[in-house]
Amino acid sequence: MSDRDTRHKQSMQKLKAHVDKKVAKAQEQRGLLLVFTGNGKGKTTAAWGTVTRALGYGYKVGVVQFIKGLWECGERERLIDDANLDVQIMATGFTWDTQNRDTDTAACLAVWHEAKRMLADSSVYLVVLDEITYMLKFGYLDIVTVKQALQNRPAEQTVIVTGRNAHRELIDMADTVTEMQEVRHAFNHGVQARRGIDY
Amino acid sequence: MSDRDTRHKQSMQKLKAHVDKKVAKAQEQRGLLLVFTGNGKGKTTAAWGTVTRALGYGYKVGVVQFIKGLWECGERERLIDDANLDVQIMATGFTWDTQNRDTDTAACLAVWHEAKRMLADSSVYLVVLDEITYMLKFGYLDIVTVKQALQNRPAEQTVIVTGRNAHRELIDMADTVTEMQEVRHAFNHGVQARRGIDY
Repeated sequence: MSDRDTRHKQSMQKLKAHVDKKVAKAQEQRGLLLVFTGNGKGKTTAAWGTVTRALGYGYKVGVVQFIKGLWECGERERLIDDANLDVQIMATGFTWDTQNRDTDTAACLAVWHEAKRMLADSSVYLVVLDEITYMLKFGYLDIVTVKQALQNRPAEQTVIVTGRNAHRELIDMADTVTEMQEVRHAFNHGVQARRGIDY
Repeated sequence: MSDRDTRHKQSMQKLKAHVDKKVAKAQEQRGLLLVFTGNGKGKTTAAWGTVTRALGYGYKVGVVQFIKGLWECGERERLIDDANLDVQIMATGFTWDTQNRDTDTAACLAVWHEAKRMLADSSVYLVVLDEITYMLKFGYLDIVTVKQALQNRPAEQTVIVTGRNAHRELIDMADTVTEMQEVRHAFNHGVQARRGIDY
């Protein structure tokens, strides 16, 4: 065996030992609270990747879309026929197109009602609260209400929260938090949003 | 209108003007190179979210899985019947389970051959090179070969590269780069990887 091969093998064995140790330590089994936040591309997309994943095992999934709902949306199109998927959409467009606080708040509370139903249903394995962070930021929803619904949810249920500037208290209570940081975004360099890629 | 409503409306109008201006400036239409890197959860998941999205519009998609291939994988299960999806999997398991440089290199080159085929096929709208960054890091593939295949691909084709420690030259040539940073990960706090969520 060459020196390079030996070094490679040693390095891989060390890595494997490290991972094996972590796997052995990870004994707790329960639903998770995941937060995908930050200013980069991939938050909603990662949530839908997880939706696809959970549906692949036949689990029931609920998705509540707080902002992008009225946009054309390829991932919803692809999966919407799945009997295990329940998608609820906020009934206004992008909030800066309506610019009416009262109708936006009412629309938000109406779809939050659907979210609460999912968060109380132990047959729902995964709930996605897509872009709910903006509802908290704009004051359409309050953090106490949201935290309570998350804390009281079934123990086996996983929830994914997406959106920029996630509330500190959501981050504190989450099991897994990823900050999607924008290093570069084509849109800021004159390239159009692309069908099937960006929406 | 209350002061609060007025301020909200002004702030939303400012935001809308900003976004409208960016939309107007973004005129270029072409395939993109996206890189999802960083040490946080969501890179592969965001890639699969995009796969689901593209399939939702009936586009052809190719996925090449360089590492996790042999793992059980809910998103692949959910979509694999789609005639527009072509998934190619590297024929060894996690590389630190095999720990053999020669067989890993051969397996990598075999599946890279499939990737090259997709990258030369203008009917493929989206190609995902999942965890290819590790192949470059381990030296199973060289950056010149990979860059060349990316540069020569059809202009309308989008490519997503995932994995930690993306090569500097890949980042430099990419249109959109997101660094998925781990803020917290349940696995590091004793919680088991969860079926339908983590794999």
